[in-house]
Amino acid sequence: MKQTLIKNLYRHTENFIDQKVQISGWIRTIRDSKTFGFIELNDGSFFKGVQIVFDDQLENYKEIAKLPISSSLKVEGDFIHTPEAKQPFEIKATKIDLEGSSNVDYPLQKKRHTFEYLRTIAHLRPRTNTFNAVFRVRSIAAYAIHKFFQEQGFVYVQSPIITGSDTEGAGEMFRVTTLDMDNLPKNEEGKTDSSKDFFGRETNLTVSGQLSAEAFALAFRNVYTFGPTFRAENSNTARHAAEFWMMEPEMAFAELPDIMDNTEEMVKFVINYVLEHAPEEMNFFNSFVEKGLLDRLENARTADFGRVTYTEAIELLKESGEDFGYPVEWGLDLQTEHERYLCEKVFKKPVFVTDYPKEIKAFYMRLNDDQKTVAATDLLVPGIGELVGGSQREEREEVLTAKIKELGMNEEDYWWYLELRKYGGTKHAGYGLGFERLIMYLTGMTNIRDVIPFPRTPGNAEF
Amino acid sequence: MKQTLIKNLYRHTENFIDQKVQISGWIRTIRDSKTFGFIELNDGSFFKGVQIVFDDQLENYKEIAKLPISSSLKVEGDFIHTPEAKQPFEIKATKIDLEGSSNVDYPLQKKRHTFEYLRTIAHLRPRTNTFNAVFRVRSIAAYAIHKFFQEQGFVYVQSPIITGSDTEGAGEMFRVTTLDMDNLPKNEEGKTDSSKDFFGRETNLTVSGQLSAEAFALAFRNVYTFGPTFRAENSNTARHAAEFWMMEPEMAFAELPDIMDNTEEMVKFVINYVLEHAPEEMNFFNSFVEKGLLDRLENARTADFGRVTYTEAIELLKESGEDFGYPVEWGLDLQTEHERYLCEKVFKKPVFVTDYPKEIKAFYMRLNDDQKTVAATDLLVPGIGELVGGSQREEREEVLTAKIKELGMNEEDYWWYLELRKYGGTKHAGYGLGFERLIMYLTGMTNIRDVIPFPRTPGNAEF
Repeated sequence: MKQTLIKNLYRHTENFIDQKVQISGWIRTIRDSKTFGFIELNDGSFFKGVQIVFDDQLENYKEIAKLPISSSLKVEGDFIHTPEAKQPFEIKATKIDLEGSSNVDYPLQKKRHTFEYLRTIAHLRPRTNTFNAVFRVRSIAAYAIHKFFQEQGFVYVQSPIITGSDTEGAGEMFRVTTLDMDNLPKNEEGKTDSSKDFFGRETNLTVSGQLSAEAFALAFRNVYTFGPTFRAENSNTARHAAEFWMMEPEMAFAELPDIMDNTEEMVKFVINYVLEHAPEEMNFFNSFVEKGLLDRLENARTADFGRVTYTEAIELLKESGEDFGYPVEWGLDLQTEHERYLCEKVFKKPVFVTDYPKEIKAFYMRLNDDQKTVAATDLLVPGIGELVGGSQREEREEVLTAKIKELGMNEEDYWWYLELRKYGGTKHAGYGLGFERLIMYLTGMTNIRDVIPFPRTPGNAEF
Repeated sequence: MKQTLIKNLYRHTENFIDQKVQISGWIRTIRDSKTFGFIELNDGSFFKGVQIVFDDQLENYKEIAKLPISSSLKVEGDFIHTPEAKQPFEIKATKIDLEGSSNVDYPLQKKRHTFEYLRTIAHLRPRTNTFNAVFRVRSIAAYAIHKFFQEQGFVYVQSPIITGSDTEGAGEMFRVTTLDMDNLPKNEEGKTDSSKDFFGRETNLTVSGQLSAEAFALAFRNVYTFGPTFRAENSNTARHAAEFWMMEPEMAFAELPDIMDNTEEMVKFVINYVLEHAPEEMNFFNSFVEKGLLDRLENARTADFGRVTYTEAIELLKESGEDFGYPVEWGLDLQTEHERYLCEKVFKKPVFVTDYPKEIKAFYMRLNDDQKTVAATDLLVPGIGELVGGSQREEREEVLTAKIKELGMNEEDYWWYLELRKYGGTKHAGYGLGFERLIMYLTGMTNIRDVIPFPRTPGNAEF
């Protein structure tokens, strides 16, 4: 008999009524009396498990009845439709084979565990309801992003991880080396001789695929990257990880409003896709992780996102009478408290803030005609703050070169990036979505460590 | 007027007949007489460009006619249907705006360039026919992989890049550090003190996401990874890169034949999807990169893949009478020449070789009852050799522990991997697909450097 996934029992119940079925899975709960027992079996294909009824007609009844939770089984039995009951069906076992026994010291016993504790058993935590839901939603959201862009003909660019350049010019990068750390080659000045390293130069882990994406946008028009990025920032907060995934679309012949439109469509598409494909998980989050989550997402997927300039936003914050922890002044960056106030209290929905002071934004952003601001935008969403950061890129070669010089950056490092402006440059724009922030936004989870399969943070690279 | 992508002009020609259209793009070719001229404009949305006819009715006729190739334009004009002509339509320009001029020293002039030269301008090469086709096929194939697995309910696991473990136990890893290479902290023995490093330990770039995938398969049943992996191997061949993408499915309650079935379905699905979604590109490869490519792929997508044991394969090779460069002997690994002989000459189609000697395979592969071989399989394909390597994993805790000890590996490093066997382990199996090999197989390109946007090889991390 062919095995059936538990997901199919739920999604296509009508096909199984009064049929024999064979399933496999792990014991979530088990209870027994002398002559019969119940097992909740979960096979990972679906958020919910299925109830197995078994009795001492089975020759191995006593062995099965004693099994510790998380033991794995193969079960054959009759599918019993119980539309009146709380569970719409159960399986009356005619045969149960033990696949692999668990152990009485299995760490995930019925009691509630803290998220902190579960991080120490990251290899087992996807077996809990919460993390099973988180990582399934993460998978579905990743696919939704690919689907959204592919169906519009965007080309997926797998930009390099190891890089000699520093996109943001911000430092805080991880060095990548094959040099023997106990026996480093030295140059004439007594410094480490990077020319002897694997790539013949100093290399680091990328902080962004944007520069690569720009090169490809000027060949394919519309592209996106989606891959891991890195920050060697020594901050132990609930929002920072050393390794995280970024998705960065880049569009040629596009200006700031074009990427704002694209961002809004993309966010709504992903919300809709996840609600449609993981309704059980989303209801779970709404009940047990963040009350009101579904209302918040319903609001986001139906509202027209707000749009406001940075200059207007500063006025709104000043007029608010709120007692913020950080100062509000034209020229200063918005802090999370300001961002959340704007989207949660003023607009009560996602809002794009545009045209930030050039001093607080990256070198590649396009200078506006006022010479004071750049064509940048951040999308702020309730519960999170900044979800997306984007900009129109400076396509004018002379303006970009002047900026690179002004910031004391090394022009030669950007030779190819400047050439993109020299050989048929176009207006172009793009944005970056921190994928983990999106998952936190979709699930209500509040610590980035709890939306990454095996998180990397200062002092932690276990597993 | 809203801009139209050139792709839409080809795919939905009937909607544009006798309409006004506006498009943007880059000049691929331009020629003019005194009073009229022709431009082939490509906007990156489609493999082919569109012919623009323009004349001196345009006030900027002389400026446009002089433009160097790769200049970018916005064009408004009339869509002229020419079903009898070689090109099914053209656009009679009523207005042409220069978006960004190129330069006369643009490196991609009409003459043919070597792939070697084009690698030195990797930021521009996607503008050539060959690389435009390669990277669009790469994008489409990546999406096909996601689609194949998502539609079967597999969960996408983004496994960590920075890791403390070495899956293959093979060494040759890149070290990741934030220590000051000119001022390294030392421990009491005078060695570099890794406990002072960012993660409090020595960390490296991952060579495989498999161990992570196994942990998730034992929670979700069916999962896959798809992300960058790294080898610090100092080999300058057409098949090796330091950074490449791997796709690694892992299935619980599965044995070797299950993953062979899954591999065969997946490869066929990707071939079909690419042929359907990039027919122009695939015809181009068939004409200009590898004659016979389409026949080779047609054979693969329709044949039942062969299946043969390693032991049988060794016999076949010995009986062949071929003069191989490397020896053929039971116990020795198959070389590419052997692999290609088997699939190209003996089977004339893709073939799975199974049950390799345990000594030449990784520690985690399941020991067969003969105690000499392991439940491993490689998929060999014509033109490439090994495309996929997979195995059933050793689920028996005591057998796995003994193997780890036998190989002198550090059991403590694998504490969590061993726990997967302790708490409800199941038979499980998985495989790894080198994504660049797949792209070479699909396109006929013969150097891995030419299927990666910005390749990293010994001595090369430019861009």
